[in-house]
Amino acid sequence: MHKSDYTFSKKAVSCYFDADFSNISGLVGDADIVIITDVNVFFHHEEKFSTFPVIKISSGEEFKTQATVDYIIRELISLGANRNAFLIGIGGGVVTDITGYVAAVYMRGIKFGFAPTSILAMVDASIGGKNGIDVGVYKNMVGTIRQPEFIFYDYSFLQTLPVKEWVNGFAEVIKHACIKDALLFSILERYSLHDYQTDKTLVAELIEKNVEIKCGIVTQDEFETGDRKLLNFGHTIGHAIENLHGMPHGHAVSIGIVAACNLSEKINGFHFEEAAKIVKLLAAYHLPVDIETNHEKVFDVLKMDKKRKGEGVQFILLKNIGDAEIKFISLTELESHFKEIL
Amino acid sequence: MHKSDYTFSKKAVSCYFDADFSNISGLVGDADIVIITDVNVFFHHEEKFSTFPVIKISSGEEFKTQATVDYIIRELISLGANRNAFLIGIGGGVVTDITGYVAAVYMRGIKFGFAPTSILAMVDASIGGKNGIDVGVYKNMVGTIRQPEFIFYDYSFLQTLPVKEWVNGFAEVIKHACIKDALLFSILERYSLHDYQTDKTLVAELIEKNVEIKCGIVTQDEFETGDRKLLNFGHTIGHAIENLHGMPHGHAVSIGIVAACNLSEKINGFHFEEAAKIVKLLAAYHLPVDIETNHEKVFDVLKMDKKRKGEGVQFILLKNIGDAEIKFISLTELESHFKEIL
Repeated sequence: MHKSDYTFSKKAVSCYFDADFSNISGLVGDADIVIITDVNVFFHHEEKFSTFPVIKISSGEEFKTQATVDYIIRELISLGANRNAFLIGIGGGVVTDITGYVAAVYMRGIKFGFAPTSILAMVDASIGGKNGIDVGVYKNMVGTIRQPEFIFYDYSFLQTLPVKEWVNGFAEVIKHACIKDALLFSILERYSLHDYQTDKTLVAELIEKNVEIKCGIVTQDEFETGDRKLLNFGHTIGHAIENLHGMPHGHAVSIGIVAACNLSEKINGFHFEEAAKIVKLLAAYHLPVDIETNHEKVFDVLKMDKKRKGEGVQFILLKNIGDAEIKFISLTELESHFKEIL
Repeated sequence: MHKSDYTFSKKAVSCYFDADFSNISGLVGDADIVIITDVNVFFHHEEKFSTFPVIKISSGEEFKTQATVDYIIRELISLGANRNAFLIGIGGGVVTDITGYVAAVYMRGIKFGFAPTSILAMVDASIGGKNGIDVGVYKNMVGTIRQPEFIFYDYSFLQTLPVKEWVNGFAEVIKHACIKDALLFSILERYSLHDYQTDKTLVAELIEKNVEIKCGIVTQDEFETGDRKLLNFGHTIGHAIENLHGMPHGHAVSIGIVAACNLSEKINGFHFEEAAKIVKLLAAYHLPVDIETNHEKVFDVLKMDKKRKGEGVQFILLKNIGDAEIKFISLTELESHFKEIL
């Protein structure tokens, strides 16, 4: 196990890499641990949690709702949990997003940490303090920004991760490469999903690199007034189609990345050969690169995007692979290109 | 109109006293105002709000729940409210608590301000950034601490405040005097509720004095690690009986103050004549000073109090009128006195 500390506005978050879950209780002092996980993770790893109270939620994005938050709060009350409680969210992005949100509001805020179990949660969802829930088709409409005490990387959880969840996670890895790191992009081109699934050293390096990229951005701009917005690359259109089509987050982001590349070609001088390389890489990692959809419905959802500002959206476009920028695009202009880019 | 700024950890909050509601839109720049109020306030003051979108909630503590929060969020979405929205909560403590909470979580946080319309909200609930909702019988079980941009004191709202709400508010005024200000206590002894209801200058002075006391405490200890706990005087037992008996907050606090005085006599050397003066003052302002209750049920609710720490509670006791302190009392000790103090 080794540790990196990243300093946010209000606190430092400790990332423990190559760690073993059995050591986790050493990190919380005399607080009362309550585990929050989903039924799938519990099914595969029940023996790891035997000494702690566990609150189990249903698995899947469709349960990232207020109803699940209400359920967890009722369970905390019946456990007699007070401000000394320490929530540990063990699971993918849905579990970490909900755990962070419950911890932010239960008794006006209690401590929490994460043990992410999916690639997506390890490289993205568990990092940066954003938490929240969906409201109908609208993604992350309700939530807060509040940092965990720690993020605990026990790679043994990946042994039970389904292939489709490996695919899902690589959408965010490729996103990081596209917006910030051309070298990472070329490494991803060199290897395959199978290489990462079978080579523990390779995946450990990949995860640490991605944690470094995301923490680097978020520690500079925790409350998203500037560069943190770059992390929304592929997410404006991605979020709009995700719940509308009930598709996995990574798939939606992959399609959103392709749409953002198309728009970058049209209005930001992004070279078509670079765009083609991105489409090829997404496909090589088994991610979808297009979709049959109802453009009007997608556009209606997109209008409620949190990045909307007045009559436009702050859209993330590429200049080159590894180099992104924030551009204000009016809803009218976006609509005029919409059927050609998605 | 005159203004006092109080500086909290993350921002300054501006209090506008003796202000006129028609000037409120000048405080929000180019943000999109959305008014949140309750049906009673709307009924009496509809004409004041005619130029803004208004979300109306039911009136009463029993609606300080997640269901009401869900309703407001759906309404905000259907108004197309984005991060440029600015919520203004106009009403008593339920409206200000819920408005602050929705603003803290909608799109991960939007700006908000208050125009309190009751004595209780003016001197207490709207100040200090605590927001939240009840969960069943448990008061303020869910919420955050986050400061408004402003608090706007338009005393004309008091003209339509029912007498019972005047009474309700004076429980917190008397609490402030008990814990911090012996001079305020003697002023309250000199006048009557009727005097405050009929003398605009007198009530304006009283409100500004109470804002000063509460802001003085909260700016020193926003996140309640120390002296802010003093404001919980009367609230540990008060909260436990409030929703159990479905009684007004001020009534529950008044009974809680009497119980805390009794306990202060027993274990903190508080003089019985001082305790008698407090009981007399509460009664003079038409507040109840005892209750027939089920002690076991009250004690069960009290165990979930947010101020509980391990096997005890941080209880606020008096040494003298105007001088309070925080004492850790074990649940066992508290239980042994419980039937004699309440």
